[in-house]
This record gives sequence, structure tokens and C-alpha cells, in this order.
Amino acid sequence: MRRTLFTQDHEDFRLLVRDFLAREVVPVYEEWRRAGLVPRELFTSLGKLGIIGTAIPEEYGGGGHDDYRYNVVIQEECARACVTLGGLRTHLDVVVPYFTGLANAAQQARWFPGLASGELYTAIAMSEPGTGSDLAGIATTAVRDGDHYLLNGSKTFITGGHHADLVIVVARTSTDPENRRAGLSLLVVEKGMPGFTVGRKLEKIGLATQDTVELSFADVRVPAANLLGEEGAAFSSLGRNLAQERLAIAVGAVAQTRTAIDLTVSYVRERTVFGKPVAHFQNTKFELAAMAAESEAAQAMLDAAVTGLVAGELSAVDAAKTKLFCTEVQGRVVDRCLQLHGGYGYILEYPIARLYADARVTRIYGGTSEVMKTIISRSLGL
Amino acid sequence: MRRTLFTQDHEDFRLLVRDFLAREVVPVYEEWRRAGLVPRELFTSLGKLGIIGTAIPEEYGGGGHDDYRYNVVIQEECARACVTLGGLRTHLDVVVPYFTGLANAAQQARWFPGLASGELYTAIAMSEPGTGSDLAGIATTAVRDGDHYLLNGSKTFITGGHHADLVIVVARTSTDPENRRAGLSLLVVEKGMPGFTVGRKLEKIGLATQDTVELSFADVRVPAANLLGEEGAAFSSLGRNLAQERLAIAVGAVAQTRTAIDLTVSYVRERTVFGKPVAHFQNTKFELAAMAAESEAAQAMLDAAVTGLVAGELSAVDAAKTKLFCTEVQGRVVDRCLQLHGGYGYILEYPIARLYADARVTRIYGGTSEVMKTIISRSLGL
Amino acid sequence: MRRTLFTQDHEDFRLLVRDFLAREVVPVYEEWRRAGLVPRELFTSLGKLGIIGTAIPEEYGGGGHDDYRYNVVIQEECARACVTLGGLRTHLDVVVPYFTGLANAAQQARWFPGLASGELYTAIAMSEPGTGSDLAGIATTAVRDGDHYLLNGSKTFITGGHHADLVIVVARTSTDPENRRAGLSLLVVEKGMPGFTVGRKLEKIGLATQDTVELSFADVRVPAANLLGEEGAAFSSLGRNLAQERLAIAVGAVAQTRTAIDLTVSYVRERTVFGKPVAHFQNTKFELAAMAAESEAAQAMLDAAVTGLVAGELSAVDAAKTKLFCTEVQGRVVDRCLQLHGGYGYILEYPIARLYADARVTRIYGGTSEVMKTIISRSLGL
Amino acid sequence: MRRTLFTQDHEDFRLLVRDFLAREVVPVYEEWRRAGLVPRELFTSLGKLGIIGTAIPEEYGGGGHDDYRYNVVIQEECARACVTLGGLRTHLDVVVPYFTGLANAAQQARWFPGLASGELYTAIAMSEPGTGSDLAGIATTAVRDGDHYLLNGSKTFITGGHHADLVIVVARTSTDPENRRAGLSLLVVEKGMPGFTVGRKLEKIGLATQDTVELSFADVRVPAANLLGEEGAAFSSLGRNLAQERLAIAVGAVAQTRTAIDLTVSYVRERTVFGKPVAHFQNTKFELAAMAAESEAAQAMLDAAVTGLVAGELSAVDAAKTKLFCTEVQGRVVDRCLQLHGGYGYILEYPIARLYADARVTRIYGGTSEVMKTIISRSLGL
Repeated sequence: MRRTLFTQDHEDFRLLVRDFLAREVVPVYEEWRRAGLVPRELFTSLGKLGIIGTAIPEEYGGGGHDDYRYNVVIQEECARACVTLGGLRTHLDVVVPYFTGLANAAQQARWFPGLASGELYTAIAMSEPGTGSDLAGIATTAVRDGDHYLLNGSKTFITGGHHADLVIVVARTSTDPENRRAGLSLLVVEKGMPGFTVGRKLEKIGLATQDTVELSFADVRVPAANLLGEEGAAFSSLGRNLAQERLAIAVGAVAQTRTAIDLTVSYVRERTVFGKPVAHFQNTKFELAAMAAESEAAQAMLDAAVTGLVAGELSAVDAAKTKLFCTEVQGRVVDRCLQLHGGYGYILEYPIARLYADARVTRIYGGTSEVMKTIISRSLGL
Repeated sequence: MRRTLFTQDHEDFRLLVRDFLAREVVPVYEEWRRAGLVPRELFTSLGKLGIIGTAIPEEYGGGGHDDYRYNVVIQEECARACVTLGGLRTHLDVVVPYFTGLANAAQQARWFPGLASGELYTAIAMSEPGTGSDLAGIATTAVRDGDHYLLNGSKTFITGGHHADLVIVVARTSTDPENRRAGLSLLVVEKGMPGFTVGRKLEKIGLATQDTVELSFADVRVPAANLLGEEGAAFSSLGRNLAQERLAIAVGAVAQTRTAIDLTVSYVRERTVFGKPVAHFQNTKFELAAMAAESEAAQAMLDAAVTGLVAGELSAVDAAKTKLFCTEVQGRVVDRCLQLHGGYGYILEYPIARLYADARVTRIYGGTSEVMKTIISRSLGL
Repeated sequence: MRRTLFTQDHEDFRLLVRDFLAREVVPVYEEWRRAGLVPRELFTSLGKLGIIGTAIPEEYGGGGHDDYRYNVVIQEECARACVTLGGLRTHLDVVVPYFTGLANAAQQARWFPGLASGELYTAIAMSEPGTGSDLAGIATTAVRDGDHYLLNGSKTFITGGHHADLVIVVARTSTDPENRRAGLSLLVVEKGMPGFTVGRKLEKIGLATQDTVELSFADVRVPAANLLGEEGAAFSSLGRNLAQERLAIAVGAVAQTRTAIDLTVSYVRERTVFGKPVAHFQNTKFELAAMAAESEAAQAMLDAAVTGLVAGELSAVDAAKTKLFCTEVQGRVVDRCLQLHGGYGYILEYPIARLYADARVTRIYGGTSEVMKTIISRSLGL
Repeated sequence: MRRTLFTQDHEDFRLLVRDFLAREVVPVYEEWRRAGLVPRELFTSLGKLGIIGTAIPEEYGGGGHDDYRYNVVIQEECARACVTLGGLRTHLDVVVPYFTGLANAAQQARWFPGLASGELYTAIAMSEPGTGSDLAGIATTAVRDGDHYLLNGSKTFITGGHHADLVIVVARTSTDPENRRAGLSLLVVEKGMPGFTVGRKLEKIGLATQDTVELSFADVRVPAANLLGEEGAAFSSLGRNLAQERLAIAVGAVAQTRTAIDLTVSYVRERTVFGKPVAHFQNTKFELAAMAAESEAAQAMLDAAVTGLVAGELSAVDAAKTKLFCTEVQGRVVDRCLQLHGGYGYILEYPIARLYADARVTRIYGGTSEVMKTIISRSLGL
């Protein structure tokens, strides 16, 4: 169905991104994939073209757009080109909004130019070994010591942690036994601070170019000037951007779902088995037709949600519904697309295999499907 | 998510319909259901209120709206009230468009006033025993004899056939062995014409108030003035309204899906098992949350499709995708809702049981899911 | 796969049943279905042939077989003939075992001859309005008064309640606020006892010939001699036969699943659409192949469970797994079979439509799928 | 449910295998996985213990058992230990049967001792780039030249191709344009033969320790004495073992499914979220209960099929049903188990992640689910 989400500005931006990916990424992507990492310079290249800093105010060199649709375009074009740019999505859709939403004037001056130019790459460190995404269980502590905080603890599943120049760390600055969600603060830890160690890269089923690491903090002295937002207010800060964070996952899910279908349509038209193109079998036709219908539903829902977000009215519940549904569609569709590739679908040099391996995490990160259901059921009065 | 489909006019109309249903239908609905038929007077009552003739030009006493959203409102309100008004949906969404689209001036003068007032109730007779919905196989013949056609044949699965005052019959007026789809014409057969017999009501799994009958035609003399559209042009006429016909089924499917969820949410909050409300079990919460997400996706897709239809740009393929997806969602959701009702879900006095029994046909009529997939797969170049 | 469950005796019995159904039931079944009841004489006819009393000792005129496989044969043959014999399954698989397991010598002498001959038809009354199958919530009371109990209360969802000569009623003979499951007893209420009223037949989605009724008891004087088992011991009595009761539902589910597939294979080979047999479409082939595989799995599981039951070693957990899986297979398969019938699948004169309408209750009665999951999860230590 | 498949001999063998895996494999498995290969010596170690040669006649140092259940035990114990031993399953279940079934006396003398001792490791080369598993399309040729064949062509997806000492190559020894399945022969190519090149290892989604390679043959001179079976008879030879080949995949699928459930049960009991063990959530309980039921059905079906195979009566159709169903259960169950692990499920150091990555191929290799459905549908007369 005709989409009405984008303006001409977004479409111009789309061509810019598409062209960059075709020239600078696709030809070398296989190397990045084998290396298990995108090169650090990628982000400065994106910065030069104005791709990475759309949300940063113009005065700091950014695009000055408070418009999530630019991020949507980036994800759609990455999916179309069958690449993932490490943890770029997390940087743009999850971490940067903390800076744009919470940084004070001094922090803006320090960090925004780098965020606009791609010189500063970021990560956020929430999950801890053993507690997962349950903020109430956070054990990392930051104890005020003069004009510093003394930070201790360890974090895991940190997307972008290898490349990150700035890591927003969720730490406990005070303890209220009655309310475990109180007393959490956000501290910006900088690469190279003594006591801050980037641990091993976790080996994942997919997302090969995305660095996911463990981080540890041993008596790291973080200047009080690096406190992002108010002390003790992290819990509500973390909640504020959740709708967009979840929507972002749905955006990627739908974009990759459509890519999977496109790849498969091409494949079955070219590939011959038992003397005729795979496309000629009714099973192939019906499978792809069912997927096309389902992905169209996901796209319609997603576009309605993005429209809501841009209008500032997307609720947490609607974001949860959208993430839940779109990532489940992705899981189902990519699995069926792989099947239509036969044995080639299992070989990683075929993009469908990578889409499959990548897809499995979207029902988990950013809040599992079970967490989404919990949020939704509450809205039903259950 | 917030819907943007309706204007204030539609919402006013909605209150009118809702009020009528609450006063005139709900209190007696159980009788109608047991009788297996709505009373004929229902349609004239709807006519008096201007509910049944919205699409008929004002000069003939209709609402003068070429706006499918009024029909959407009627289906949504019927679902909300847990009633089905016999074959009203077929009359409004399927048959009336043939009259408004094809009737010549004389026919408009004869029939439009009755369509506007509810005095004329209609049906369309396509399917035949043994050929189903495959138009190429139609064996009913209409042989020109002076200023009449001599009509012979039999039809089955005719919704509204019991009450119908006017039945549009698809008949073969000439035979081209090379092209079995050519030579089909539409003839308006009037109740009481000699040789026209309404056969037995078919007993269905659900849709209790909808009369579905067999019709037979033995040398029925139909005046040539009752030819609707051009002779031999039925095949293309029948194709013209297909997108709306299919969308209409999706509209009902989504409306009933949402009703099923609402009913179930209420039920599980009231019903207690093993000492606590069914709503308190996590399984209940997760089931309903998953359904809420899926139904929201269906609603988003449907609203986008209705918007397209109203703008005159809904393609056959998009209608097919929408029907396929929305009716499958209905099937899955209503089944799960019934399950949460336990044994009561199987008892027809509970609306969920009727929604279940009614739902099974939507994946079949108006083109089966398999036909939808065929249409969609062609659009993918398969 | 080759089944190894039956001996020649069972196969001889099978032919007897098959012959009876073909001669005495199939020709008149449509009348029974429309009447919503099987004739009472059916059971005495079955008695004359030795079909209904296989489990009753020979000295009382029964078959003297403590072998559940005879019951399996009856269900399989009913499914094969596309008939359901009212609540016969409940009588044989659920109620009779209470008599054979609990009746004392005097009760055996009074009731076994009638059970063997089909003169006595039975029901069991557990569920109450508002409590469902939760025994702890039973509110029907039986107060000892000399050599009688005074029985008061009401029951619902009572299969066979219309025809039943003997109804085993679960009633509370004493109250222990600490243990709501204690103090329950089984009383055999006889048709015609003053104060015992058979209420209206509940209208169900399917199971048309099965009488499901509400019963009410107003100061019914039940002789103490009609106490079945020990006073206060009903809870454990009710648990003893649960494995067989649940298995019995799985038996019917699998038998009807296979019938649905057989019917559909025949149908698609005969029915032509768009100029070729439905059987020639790859979608048809793949759908039926997938169903054949799934039903084969269900049959293998079921036969292993029946073997276990006959050997006296079927656990409650294995019965729960079998019921859960087999009824879900039934739900999925019968739905897909109906779809392949197109519009005819929705018309009740086609057996597939009745199989569909009947199937929906098996995931609910005898313990819902949710109850089965609870039982299974406990066995996993969860 | 109680399994009746194994005798004490099998259980003794099981302990031998279990012990070996625990001592020799599990402690170093992570290294093998990272290396992407098991060490060649593994097979001789297995040979020393009599694990690898059970099917080879005793006179050649083997176990002398024509009993597939020993292979079942090996797969079950590997699954239990969360390891895969490269392409061992293919060697044992697929390739060795060609040798035991087709080798003449001289070939037996040459090769059986090595097969018994693990000195000879094998592969079979069927698939070619572009033709997949469609034998009719095989383009590799073997032209007779005196007492040699001149072999030319290339093969892909060859499991075990890196380690293989002997590769059975399917090649075309004559061409019949009327019958593309005729004229195929089996030639045993030995490691090191001039012109035989082992190509690159294909990078797969999972099965990390299994070497899957491309092979090429450029004027390889294969002695005529290396012809296995009759010249031109490969097509029927290849069909003879198909039932076991497919069953073998189902065996692994079910074993790994059960392991996944066991791992997940342990995980959810230990892991705490939002302050309580994951096991305490009803969703967790119901998910695992549903999986337990489904895996029990798969096990029952599989055991019946293995019993059939051992009795020499397993049909191709029953093998197809078993592979289709069991691998689909595996796909569904492993996916749900991973989900219950949350983020850890995506990290390859957790066995559930590896089970997930490994599982995706079973619906494809050894004949895709679509091929299985084709076979089954034929048996239904469709």
C-alpha cells in the first residue's frame, strides 16, 4: 500500500544514504563481517555527509531535525543493502536521545560537535550479569567523592562498547531499600578513563559486525560534570525514550522483513529445481504471498506508530504492541524465506542466512516479547 | 493507536446506528437467532432512519454519499452490539454497488427509491452447484426471446436470497468456447417472477440470522429492461467492485476481532477459577496482550486500505492482502478468546461462541485465502 | 505407520460396531442431528449386541473385559462413520468406571445388569454454574437425614443429563474450611426422584446429538444406599480415573482428525475448481501431507499412551500431554481440512463442518489445555 | 512416556559413549567449536572404543551389529552432552551404509578394517552447484579409460569433506537423454588422488564443528576397482538407504529438542528476573509444558519409526512423515527455549544458542520439508 510517511527531504536523504552504502560499505562489507567489527572511521565518514548527526542542533554542526524519520530512512537503506553498521542503530536511536534530551549547556558544548561529526561514538550500559534489564537489580555503584564519582561494577551486553568514546553508565548513587528504582544516576564514562576496561566481545548467533561487550569499572573517577540529568533521576530518564527505542527495533524488523521477501522473490525466480524455477511451485507462491500480506500489515502498523511518534503522541503501549508484532512477523517471515532458499539459506555468504541469524535477537533486546505483553496487558486492565 | 479514518459526520452516524441497534435489535436478537432469520421489516426500519441508503443519490431519497466509511460504521456497530443483521452487509457492500454503478436512468428511477427506503432488498446469484465462484464455469443460461430473456439454471450459497426482492443473476447470454468468461450478463430477477423458486435454507456452522439459500430458475421470463449493464459484460462488471467486496469482509473481521477481545477482557475480569479471577493468570494476560497487538496491526492495515478505497486508489492486490491478513487474524484471535471462556465459550448463548461460529466463513467467502494468495503472488511476479 | 495396539478380538469387535453403525445409525443420523438427540433406544440396541457393556463383569451380562481398547474401537468407528452417539463416550469412558470401580456388592447387583444391557444410561454431575470444574468450589450439599441424604444444589454442562437414568452427583456432605476438597461425596440420583429436575438443553456450537443440560436438586431424598464409594472420599475417587477420561478425549480427537483427512482427500480428488481437481494444486498436496504427518505423530503418541493405560502404568502427566497435544492437532487439522472444502465446509450437511463444530470443545472439556499445561509443568519441577 | 526401544546392550553402549564424551570431548569442545573442526584423531579414538564401527562385521574388527539403535544412542548422547562431532552422523548414518550395502569382497577387505577402527573417515558427494539434490541434474562425469575412470566435475555442501579419506562421488558414467536418472555411478575417490581438490569450508549459520566443503575433480584417475555397486545403478542405490538417512535427521532433531527443554528447565529455575525465578512465571510453565507435550509426541513417533526400521519395514513415506514432523517440532521448540533464556540465548557460549543455530538446517538437508511433503502427498493419492 502507498506509504505516506516521508517528505521529499526524507527521500533526498535516502538517496544520500543509499549512495554512501553502495559506494563505501557494500564492496567491503564481507571483510567487516569476517572481522566482526565495522571500522571506527565509518562513523566519521557518516559524519562528513551529515548522516550521523541529523538530530544534533545546527549550531553544533548537526542537521537540526527533531524528526525520527531520518533514522527510519537509515535503517531502511541498511536493510535494503543487506548490511548492518555495527551498533549504529543503538547509537542513533537509543543513546543520542539521552544526550539531546538531558545534556546541560556545558555538556552540549563538549559533546554535541563530536556527535554531529561522528567523532564521538556512544554506548549505554544498563544490563548487568545476573540482573538483565531489571533496573531495580542494578548493583554498579557511583559514590560521590568531592567533584567526582567513584564508579565500581560490571556491565554486559553493551552494544557498541568496543568503539564507544562515551558510555552512559547507569549506576546507583544512593540506596533506598524501599524503592530499588530510586537512587539511579547516569554517568558519562569516557574511553581511556583509568579503571575502565572493555572486556571480551560476546560471540553472538548473528549481528556479526556489532560489537557487544562486557565492561568493567574499578574505582573509575568520573567527574561530577559528567552526570547526565539529575542525580537519582535515571529511572524516569530511562523511561522517557523507551517508546522510540522499541519502535526503532520494529523499524529494523520490518525493513529486514521486506528485504528478506525481496531477496527471496529474486532467488526463487532464478533458481531451478527438478527442472523448473522454484517460483513456479504453488507452495513458493503461497508462502511469499502470505508473507507479503503479513509484512504489509506490519508496515502499516509501523508507519502509523512512527507517525504517532513524530507527532509526539506514541504511547508506551502502542510502541510495545508495534515492537511485539513487528518482530514476530520478522521471525516468521525470515524463517520461511530461508526455507525457500534450500541449502543456500544456511550458508552465511547468502544475505538471507545473515538476516536469519540477525533476526533472532529482536524479540529479546529492547525488552523481550514477554515484557511487551506485560506492558500491553496492563493497558487492558488485566 | 489513534484512528484518523472518520469525520464528525461518521461519528454522528455511528451514534444513530448504535442507538437503533440498542433499542430495536439487541432486545429481540435472541429470537431472530433462533428463527434463523431477521424480520423483513428490519430493512424498512433502517431505511426510515437513513441507515440503509447512504450510497443512493439524494434525489431518490438516499444519503447521497459515495463514501464507504458509512458502511464501515454499520459493521463496526453491529460487531460492537454482538449482532449480525442477516445478509445486510452483502446487500450494502456487495449488491447495491452494482445498482449504483450500472443502473441506467430508467432502472435508477425504478429501483433507487426502494433501495434508499429499504423497501427493496437485494441479493446477487453467482455461485452454482459444482462450480463455486469460478465464473468461467457458469452454466445458467439466459436466451434472448423478443424483449425478454428466458432464464434457466440454479444457484447456491445465495446470501439474502430468502428476503431478496431483487436478485442480480449472473447468466450466460452467449457462448464462446475460446473464452468462457465472455458472454456473461447480469439480469435482475424480481421476487415472484414465474419459474423463480427460492430453495431451502442451507444450515451453516454460524451466521444464524443470515439466510443463505439455493435459487432455481425454470424458464423465468426476465424483461430485457432488467439487464444491468451491457449484455456480455458481466465479467468485467463483477471485477470492478471486488476490492470493496473483499475489504468489506476484512472490515467485519477486524470489528468482530476487537469485539471478541473486549468481551474476553470483561469475562476474565469477572470470572473466577481456582479462587482467583481468570484475569490474574499470566497466561490470560499474555494471550490477550498478543491478541491486542495483532488486532491493532489488522486495524492499522485495514484503515490504510479503507483510506485508499475512499481515495479511489485501493488496488485489487492490496484488498487481497488486507482480506487475507485480517480474516486470518480473526480466526486466530477468536479461537483464543473462546478458549479463555472455558466451557461457556462453547455455548451459543455466549456471544463469543457465535463470533467463533461466524468467523469461520470469512477465510472462504468473497474469495478464499488461497485465491487471495494467488492474486498476491502474481503481483510479486511469481 | 503400522499400529500394534489391537488383537484379533478387537478387530472382530470393530466389525460388529462398524456394521451396526452402517445399518442402524448412518441412515437415520441426519434426523437425530436435527432433533438434537439420539433416541433412548440406541443404548439398548447397543446393549443387545454387547457393544455397550464390555467393561461389566460377565456374571452381570457384560463383556467382562477390563480393556480400554474396546472403547477405543467404538470411538474410532463412530469417527469413521461420521457420527457421534450423543454422550455415549462420556457414559462409557467416564461414568461407568465409577460404577465398576466403586460400587459395593449390593450396588453391583442393582445396577450392573442394566449397565450391561443398556437399560441404564448414566451421567456425572460435577460442574456448577460459576465454579466450573474446580471441585473446591462445589456448593451442592447433601445432608444426612436418617438413611437418606437431602440433596440441594444445581449443576451445569451435564453430558447425557437428558437421557440419564442414573446421575452420579458430586455433593458436599461436610465442610472443612481448611480443606475445601474434603467432604465431597458421590451420590447416585435416579431419574424421577422427587425434587430432581432436568433443566434446559444448552445450545452448543457443535455436538448436536449430545444432550448437555443443567440439573437442579431441591430437597431430593437420596437413599444412603446410593452413596458410591466412601462418604467424603469423592475427591480422590474423582482423581483415580482422570488419566482414562483425558485419554478418551484424545482418542476421539485423533480418530476424528484422521476422518477429517480422509474426507478431505476424497473431496479434493472429486472437486474441480478453475478447471482442475483441487487435488492437483500443490497447496492442497502440501496441506494434506503436513496434516498426515502431524496426525501420524498424534496416533503414535496416543497408541503409546493407550498401551500404557492397558498396562496400568499411564501417569496423569502422560495423559495430560496426550490430551493436550492430540486435541491441538485436531483443532489445527480440522480447520485446514475445512478450508480445503471451500464454501461447502461451512455447510452442516457436510461432515467436515460437523467435525469442525464438534472439535472446538476438546481443548476445553475434561480439563482445559491450560489445566493440562499446569499438570505437565509441575512434573518438570516448575 | 516409557520408551521400549532399547535393550540392555544399548544401554551399556550408551554409558560407554556418555563416558567418552564427558572425558574426551566436553572439556575441549569449546576449542573445537572455535576451530570450526573436530580433530581427525577423534575418529580413531572412537574406533578404539568400538563406538564408530558397530555396523562393520566382526571379522573386520567391527561390532557386527546391523542395528541402527546404536547410532541412535550416539546421537542421543551427543545431544545430551551439547556437542556435535563434526560430520560423524553423516559418516555413520549415511555413508557407511553404502559401504556395508554395496562393497564387494575385495573392497570389504580394503576398507572395512579402517571403517571399524576409525582410520577411514568418509563422505558422500552428491549435490552440485546449481542442481542441489536433484540427481537428474548431475553434471560430474566419469569416463571409462582402461581400468580407470576419468572423473571431472565439482560438488558442494559436502559434509565431512575436509577430513574424508574416502569420498563416494556420484558421477555420470553414461548419458541417456530420455532418462537423466540413468547412467549414474558411485566412485570411491581417495584422499590425495591427483586432481582431487578440497575447496573452501562453507561458513554456516551453525554446525560449527562440521566441515562442509566444496570438492573439485579435474581429470582424477579413479581405479575401476573403486566402483561401488554396479555401473549405472547409483540412482537405485541412493534410494535404498533414504529412509534411514532421513530417520537419522529426525533422531538428532528429537534428541536436541529434548536437550533444549532440559537446558531451559534448568535455566529458568536458576535465573531470576524482577525478583523471582523465571520458572515461577506462568508463561514459562506453560511454554515448557507445551514443548514437553510436543516433544513427547515426536519421541513416540520417532521410536515407532526406529522400531519399524529395525524390523526392516519402515517405508519411505513413514520416514518422510517422521523427518517432517520431528524437525518442525525441533524448530518450534528450540526457538521457544531460546526465548526463555532472554539475551543469553543469543550468545554462542550458551548451548541453547548453538542448538538454535544448528537446528535450522534439519528442515532442509536430507530432503527439504517440501520434498517430504511431496513424498507424503503421493502416498495419499494426490
